[in-house]
Amino acid sequence: MIKLQEIIRSHQRIKPFILRTPIFTNNSLNKMTGTEIFCKCENFQKSGAFKIRGATNAVELLSQSDMEQGIATASSGNHGAALSMAVSRRKRKVTVIMPDNSSKIKVDNVLRNGGKIIWCKPNQESRENTLKEFVKETNSIIIHPYNDKNIISGQGTAALELIEEQPDLDVIITPLSGGGLLSGTLCAIKNIRSEIQVYGAEPKEADDAYRSLIAGRRLSNKTTNTICDGLRAQVGEINFSIIKEMVDGIITLSEKQIIDAMYYIWERMKIIVEPSSAIVLAAVLKNKSIFAGKKIGLIFSGGNVNLKDIPW
Amino acid sequence: MIKLQEIIRSHQRIKPFILRTPIFTNNSLNKMTGTEIFCKCENFQKSGAFKIRGATNAVELLSQSDMEQGIATASSGNHGAALSMAVSRRKRKVTVIMPDNSSKIKVDNVLRNGGKIIWCKPNQESRENTLKEFVKETNSIIIHPYNDKNIISGQGTAALELIEEQPDLDVIITPLSGGGLLSGTLCAIKNIRSEIQVYGAEPKEADDAYRSLIAGRRLSNKTTNTICDGLRAQVGEINFSIIKEMVDGIITLSEKQIIDAMYYIWERMKIIVEPSSAIVLAAVLKNKSIFAGKKIGLIFSGGNVNLKDIPW
Repeated sequence: MIKLQEIIRSHQRIKPFILRTPIFTNNSLNKMTGTEIFCKCENFQKSGAFKIRGATNAVELLSQSDMEQGIATASSGNHGAALSMAVSRRKRKVTVIMPDNSSKIKVDNVLRNGGKIIWCKPNQESRENTLKEFVKETNSIIIHPYNDKNIISGQGTAALELIEEQPDLDVIITPLSGGGLLSGTLCAIKNIRSEIQVYGAEPKEADDAYRSLIAGRRLSNKTTNTICDGLRAQVGEINFSIIKEMVDGIITLSEKQIIDAMYYIWERMKIIVEPSSAIVLAAVLKNKSIFAGKKIGLIFSGGNVNLKDIPW
Repeated sequence: MIKLQEIIRSHQRIKPFILRTPIFTNNSLNKMTGTEIFCKCENFQKSGAFKIRGATNAVELLSQSDMEQGIATASSGNHGAALSMAVSRRKRKVTVIMPDNSSKIKVDNVLRNGGKIIWCKPNQESRENTLKEFVKETNSIIIHPYNDKNIISGQGTAALELIEEQPDLDVIITPLSGGGLLSGTLCAIKNIRSEIQVYGAEPKEADDAYRSLIAGRRLSNKTTNTICDGLRAQVGEINFSIIKEMVDGIITLSEKQIIDAMYYIWERMKIIVEPSSAIVLAAVLKNKSIFAGKKIGLIFSGGNVNLKDIPW
C-alpha cells in the first residue's frame, strides 16, 4: 500500500514535466454502453502513454551519482520510451532491454527519446536474464517498469487528476499488465473515496493476474498471444499485493472484444488509442448490465499504434 | 462580406447545439514545421465535422412553416450528416443528394442522423440537376452546403472560438472546397484583426479556387481525383467574392503531401482527421520557410474517415 500523501507528492514532483491530459466524453459511446463514460486520455500524454508519470517520478528521485552509474530497464516499449525521455532530460542515456517482437513505433519512440536498445526473446525469462547480465557487467541502476513503489506512485497520479475533475464517478477501469497503473490507481482512489469500484481489464490471452487473484498467489503466463503489446507482462510482486487487497474485480477480454472496442473508439471519438487502452471500453461493453447507468472513468493508457498494421 | 456582428449572433444561436472543440498543440509538429501550431479540432465536433455549425445556424433560422415544406441539400457527406442532425432536432427529415462514390462513413452518418439519400453521379452537373428535379417535385427548401450567407456565418464561428482562445496568431489556414469555411473565417478574422494572414489549402487535383483567383472569375474542375472527399466541390459564388477580396493566398497540395501530413497527425497527435483536414498541415510543411517562427492556427475540419480504407 502506498499512502495518498506519497502520490500527491509525486504529482507535485512530476507536474512540470508531464501533460495534464484531457478527459473526453462521447455521446455515441454513452448510448452504446448505457453508461456515462469519462476517458482520461493518456494516449495524448508525452511519449504517448501514462508511463512517463512513473518514469519521471523515479528518475527525479535519483541523485546525481545514481545517474552517473547508468540506468537500465526491461520494457516492451512504452516504459522504455518514457524512461528514455525522463533520463534524457537529466542528460544521461538509458539502456532498454526489449523483446525482439516489439512494435516498430515503440522501438522508434525509445530511439527518438535517446534510449539504447538491447534485444531479448519475447518471454519473461529472457527479459529478466538479459537485464541481469547487463546490470552485472555495467553496474547500472534498474528502474523496473512496474514492480517499484516510485513507479506505482507516479502512475497513480493519472487517477488523481481524473477524480479531481470528475469526483462523482462510480467505477474506474484501468488496463492490467504488470499492475503499475492499476495498483497506483487503487492506492489513489481507495484512499480518497473507497466506495468507487476499481477494476482491471486484462486480455484472456495473458490473464495471469486474473488467475493469480483466484489462486491467491502470483501465477505466470505460458503464452501471451495478444494484440495488446503493452499487456503481456506478468503482474509484479508489490503490484499484486496491492491489487489482491483492494481491487473490485478483474475483467478478461477476448481479442475480438478488444479490437471491436478499439474500432469504436477510433470511429466515434476520433482519437487513436492502442489495443492495450481499448480493452477498458471492451470491459464495459462486456458487462453492460452490471455497469448500466453508472458513471465510469476509463484510463486510456496509450496511443502508440503501428499505423501501418491496423488490426481490421 | 458578412459582418462580424452577424457571426457573433450566429455563435450565440448555435452554441447550445454544438461542441466548443478543443485547441490542440503538439511539440513534435512544432519541431517538424519550425512553427508554433494551434489546431482547432473540429474533427471532434458533433457529426464529426465543422459543418454542424453552418447547418445549425441555417436550420435555426427557418420558421415552422419553412420546416414543414421539407428541406433538401446536395452534399458529399459532412454537410448532409450535419444538416440531418440539425433538422432531426426540429423533428423533420432532410433529403440529401449524394454522389454515388461517397465514402461509407459519410453515408452512414447521414443515415444515422435521420437523413434520406438520393444518389447522383459524382460531378457538379449531376448533383445540381438531381437536386433541381427533386425540389421541383417536392417544393422543398434547399440549404446549400456553402453558397449561403447563413451557412458562411455559421462556419465562421470556428475561427471566432480559435481567435478568442489564441489571439496572438500570425496565420490561419483552412481547407478550401466550396469555400464556406474559408469565407466564414475571413469574415470573422479580417474584421477582428486584419493583420492575421488567412490562407486556403486546396488539393492540386481539384484546384478550381486557386485557378479562379488567378483568372479573377469562377472556374470549374474537369476532374476531382483527390483523396480529399470533402474538397471536391466547386467554389461558390458568394464564397468566391469574399475569398477574392480578402484571402492572403491559396496553397495547393499534391495527394502525397496530403497523405503524409495525415500520417504525421495520426502518429504524433493521436487524433483522427480526414484527408480534407490534414491538407492544412501539408500547407505548412510545403512552405516551411515562409511560415518559420510564426504562430499558426489550423482548422482541422473533420474526422470522418473510412477506417477500413486507410491510404497508407
